[in-house]
Amino acid sequence: MTRDIALRPLTRAAFAPFGDVIAAAGARSHPINGGMCDRHHALAAAEALGEGARTIISLGRGRPYALPLDLPMLERHPLGSQAWIPLHDRPFAVIVAPDEGGRPGTPVAFITGPGEGVNYHANIWHAPVTPLGAPGDFAIIDRDGPGTNLEEFTFSTPWRIVLGA
Amino acid sequence: MTRDIALRPLTRAAFAPFGDVIAAAGARSHPINGGMCDRHHALAAAEALGEGARTIISLGRGRPYALPLDLPMLERHPLGSQAWIPLHDRPFAVIVAPDEGGRPGTPVAFITGPGEGVNYHANIWHAPVTPLGAPGDFAIIDRDGPGTNLEEFTFSTPWRIVLGA
Repeated sequence: MTRDIALRPLTRAAFAPFGDVIAAAGARSHPINGGMCDRHHALAAAEALGEGARTIISLGRGRPYALPLDLPMLERHPLGSQAWIPLHDRPFAVIVAPDEGGRPGTPVAFITGPGEGVNYHANIWHAPVTPLGAPGDFAIIDRDGPGTNLEEFTFSTPWRIVLGA
Repeated sequence: MTRDIALRPLTRAAFAPFGDVIAAAGARSHPINGGMCDRHHALAAAEALGEGARTIISLGRGRPYALPLDLPMLERHPLGSQAWIPLHDRPFAVIVAPDEGGRPGTPVAFITGPGEGVNYHANIWHAPVTPLGAPGDFAIIDRDGPGTNLEEFTFSTPWRIVLGA
């Protein structure tokens, strides 16, 4: 049985079960600041669950991966969403999985278009940030606060992420 | 009396009364994702005050200004913070003012370094987004919810923002 999973283009419809696509293309905008700025409003909302939780803004620099890549594990954050907004125009891989009884099912692997970011909803299984070919800087919007907000699952056999047809 | 205000370099210390600088330079980082990502943690926190409020992620494309620029007004958001993270490496102007009895005092004008963003704290007087020379795309992290979250103040005579020495 193959463990290969082909990258597919990121779309709002395909990603909807897992979170939000943060991109201007295909999203309505309205003028603000006397017409000097076009705002694509509320492409995603931050979730920060539990007493004493807050939403924070961090920056991350991810080291690059090469394709095909081995995917040994996924993680999830039960108490909050996590957004990754690229500060560059290069594509990166966005790998998620549906939950099946408390563990990830078969992963789904997306490749972003230029400038597209994502917001993982709370408790959605996803891979660590996955720049392709070159390091990538990202803005991260996620939850800070008390409680355990990280769960990891290691596959008995890694999946292999490959470039699509 | 001159109405000229010179742009000065953005620094964490000088901007601290108004908000946070969102930049990797000069901020501690720690490794995540098995060492594949360096995270500059919690450079800013989002404020979303009031029942039914939430923190949202939007994108904005600002039209450019030329220097010197006239500054006719400032605005503030009493119920929440507002972060502007550039998705490009060009500098932009960040213009703020202390409050003096419910109206803005003399503005302070900063110019960002490459990749530097800002988070205005709730109720801080600030100018609309001000790209310089070329349009600029930004991620915006701010508050959505009921209530009036915008206050504007128009100066009887505009200030003039000029390039520093």
